[in-house]
Amino acid sequence: MEGHGHRLLERRTVFEGKVVRLYLDRVRLPDGREAEREVVLHWGAVGMVPVDGEGKVVLVRQYRHATGEALLEIPAGKLTPEEEPLSCAERELMEEVGYRAGRWVHLASFYTSPGFSNEMLHLYLALDLEEGEASPEEDEFLEVASVPLGHALELVKRGEIKDSKTVAGLALAALHLEGRYA
Amino acid sequence: MEGHGHRLLERRTVFEGKVVRLYLDRVRLPDGREAEREVVLHWGAVGMVPVDGEGKVVLVRQYRHATGEALLEIPAGKLTPEEEPLSCAERELMEEVGYRAGRWVHLASFYTSPGFSNEMLHLYLALDLEEGEASPEEDEFLEVASVPLGHALELVKRGEIKDSKTVAGLALAALHLEGRYA
Repeated sequence: MEGHGHRLLERRTVFEGKVVRLYLDRVRLPDGREAEREVVLHWGAVGMVPVDGEGKVVLVRQYRHATGEALLEIPAGKLTPEEEPLSCAERELMEEVGYRAGRWVHLASFYTSPGFSNEMLHLYLALDLEEGEASPEEDEFLEVASVPLGHALELVKRGEIKDSKTVAGLALAALHLEGRYA
Repeated sequence: MEGHGHRLLERRTVFEGKVVRLYLDRVRLPDGREAEREVVLHWGAVGMVPVDGEGKVVLVRQYRHATGEALLEIPAGKLTPEEEPLSCAERELMEEVGYRAGRWVHLASFYTSPGFSNEMLHLYLALDLEEGEASPEEDEFLEVASVPLGHALELVKRGEIKDSKTVAGLALAALHLEGRYA
């Protein structure tokens, strides 16, 4: 956590939870001044855009406590430490929505909120889907819905889809499928 | 923060910082069991995709302490409580990169990481740019770079751009400018 003239002077662990850790860091800025930085550590996650043979995207709706509402999202899952993102994506696609993909395309990997967190999200397009049997975790209460990709983008525009990985995933999938992002 | 059969039983404030607040919540799940939820509260932010008359996107590179590296991102800024997102976007576009936009298009608003945070990001396309004078905040150390939109998408694909708002913003801007997301 050092670089570009920034130096970590002191790290205080404020909280160690199951999902996040919170650090309060004191850093030296490039101009010599000191500043505090709040850092939320997270193990990272994967998100999958499953597109079936009819061009429909498989989405899940689930209640997200932190936001106070139910969100329509692409299937996703948290990485465990040292887990390989693609294996996690394969497992979570089957567990959450009951699909196996014959073809995976890595779309992008990004920090969800680099201003305060190191959470990294790995985004895949999942094609050539075969149906299997879902087995959601016991505290996941999911509804599954399939919508045409073009309609899903309209839902983004209308504010009915409002999750970063889903917005990025749908837009990159659309560009990829028309050969504009390969 | 209640809904879809989930009920908040108890909230403990773990940390109140300048950027985030951390709560540890005890909730009742729809099946009657209890669970803990870690919640990172944030006031929200704006991100702007400034595209100039030559189709180039104005990006900034800055060191992000939480990630331990310098990231290439669209200009952005944190909302203050009750601030209107578009006013914030106009102000931050001028402060960070020194542009005034003659035309603003709201691209999307989304939670950056709804699994643990309520941070909402409002994303705009900024067109008809006029140059003014930048005045970055005193602890912002920014480099400004302009790259063609198509090249910026290649940087996403190659893993050189890895910030959620930037990935979503570039992809939606590309779809919008070709009339596929209006």
